[in-house]
Parts: sequence; C-alpha cells; structure tokens
Amino acid sequence: MAMDGVPGSLGTSVGFSLRLGQTLFSCASLLFMSLGVEFYSYTAFCYLVTIMGLVIPWSFTLALVDGYSVLVKCPVRQPGVLVIIAAGDWVLSVLTLAAACSTASVVDLLFHSGGSICSPKCCSRYQLSAAMAFLTWFLSLASALLNIWLLPSL
Amino acid sequence: MAMDGVPGSLGTSVGFSLRLGQTLFSCASLLFMSLGVEFYSYTAFCYLVTIMGLVIPWSFTLALVDGYSVLVKCPVRQPGVLVIIAAGDWVLSVLTLAAACSTASVVDLLFHSGGSICSPKCCSRYQLSAAMAFLTWFLSLASALLNIWLLPSL
Repeated sequence: MAMDGVPGSLGTSVGFSLRLGQTLFSCASLLFMSLGVEFYSYTAFCYLVTIMGLVIPWSFTLALVDGYSVLVKCPVRQPGVLVIIAAGDWVLSVLTLAAACSTASVVDLLFHSGGSICSPKCCSRYQLSAAMAFLTWFLSLASALLNIWLLPSL
Repeated sequence: MAMDGVPGSLGTSVGFSLRLGQTLFSCASLLFMSLGVEFYSYTAFCYLVTIMGLVIPWSFTLALVDGYSVLVKCPVRQPGVLVIIAAGDWVLSVLTLAAACSTASVVDLLFHSGGSICSPKCCSRYQLSAAMAFLTWFLSLASALLNIWLLPSL
C-alpha cells in the first residue's frame, strides 16, 4: 500500500530511475568540468568537483539498493534508514544547488568578460557542466521529497 | 497545544523574531550590494538584488501578520494559508540560497583576479552582502521547516 502510494521512494522502480538519473547527470557534470579543462583555478569549479565526488557514490550506492529491492520485491521500510537517506538527500541537494549556482554565475562572468580568460569551447563545456549539476539537483530534490512523503505512512 | 508544540511557526513570538531577522538581513544585503556600488555590471549581483526585492516585502508582511497575531493572541491556523506560506518560504529560500552562492562565488573570483576589477573596499561590501544573504537563507529555511512541521498537527 505504502509502496504503491508513493512511487519514487526507496525501493521502487521510479526511485531506481531517479537514482540512475542522478548518477548519470552528476558523472556528466564532473566529466564536462574536469576533462581537459583547468578547473582548479576557480574556487567555484573546485567546489562543484568536490560535491560531485560526494553525489556520485551516494547516488550509485542507492541505485544499487533500489535495483536490488526491485529485483527481490522487498523494499526497505525501516523508518530509521529512510530518515537517514532523506536527510542525506536533503543535504546533498542543497550542496548541489549551491555548486550549480556558483558554477553558473562564474561561467556567466567569464563568458561576458571576453575571450581572453575562457575560450568559447571551454565556456560551453562549463555551461553544460552547470546545466548537468542543476539537473542533478532537481532529481535529488525529487528523491528527498518523495522519501520524506513516505515517512508518515510507515 | 499546537502553538506551544511548534515555536517559530506562524503567529508565535519566535516566528515573529525569525521574520524580523529575515527582513533585517535581506535589507542589509540589499543595501551593502546596491549603495554606491555598480552592481548592475554582473548578472549574479542583479539576481541578488531582484531576489532581495522579493524577500523583503514577503518577510515584512509576514512579520506584521505575526506581530498582530502575537498581540491579539489569535494565531492563524487555517491549513490552506499555512500551505501557501510554507510553499512561498520554500521557493524564496531556494532562490535566496542560489543568489547567495552566485554572489559569493563571483566575489571570490573578483577578489582573486587582482585589484583591477574590484577595489578592496568594494569587495568587502560584496562579501558582507553575500554573508547577509546566507543568513537570510538560513532564517527563511527555519521558517519554512517550522511551518511544515506545524501542518500535520492541524
């Protein structure tokens, strides 16, 4: 009943898709930021890389848990575990939003300051990285909200 | 009972203090950013000014409502009104966090790029503005959480 009532929470196929999306988008954000680009010269970009380094293992682990739960049809329903996961999602989504906003504003500043600092190719990579970080934030917020929604029904 | 159980929600003296703090900090952030400084040359700073222009009337109105409720000892307890206020707090706290992070990262970039763009006096004003925006975010998040907490007890 609770499992049918809240699609997207821990141990459902929608939840698995959300986790998979988070993992993919955060990996994409990290790759666009770090491959072949000197990201370590800007604090905001280092911060984004750090946060993505936290989000990727978190989302990947929970994607594995969700996938396993869907396969064995036995979702995790301990309130304590759900509270910890919801709190972790919450903290990570706030940090991801902060990283995405910082990156986007710095990219905007570099873009408008002329081509001397940032070549058009680099700038579009940074922009894509920021966009992926925003998508990661959105999916992470969805997971956090759906898990919190599930809590009162336990 | 509900009023005693959740200090800080709508119509209590703690809630009034939170709203007053939000109004003060957002006014301070706006003033530090806009007085005598050319803020309109950076997108992130314009965004901060826009968001503060939304937060100040919202917090001030709710501070008036809270103050009135405390004086007449008759707090608002309609679930519909509380949902609207909690949703508004929520959206504004996310926007405030985004504005604070953007401002902080741009200030950091300007600060480290040397004195040619931003004089030390201007930079410290920008930093103070970002710090005030973070404090506004924190108080706004507290209000949103406490109002959501109150909802199930109605």
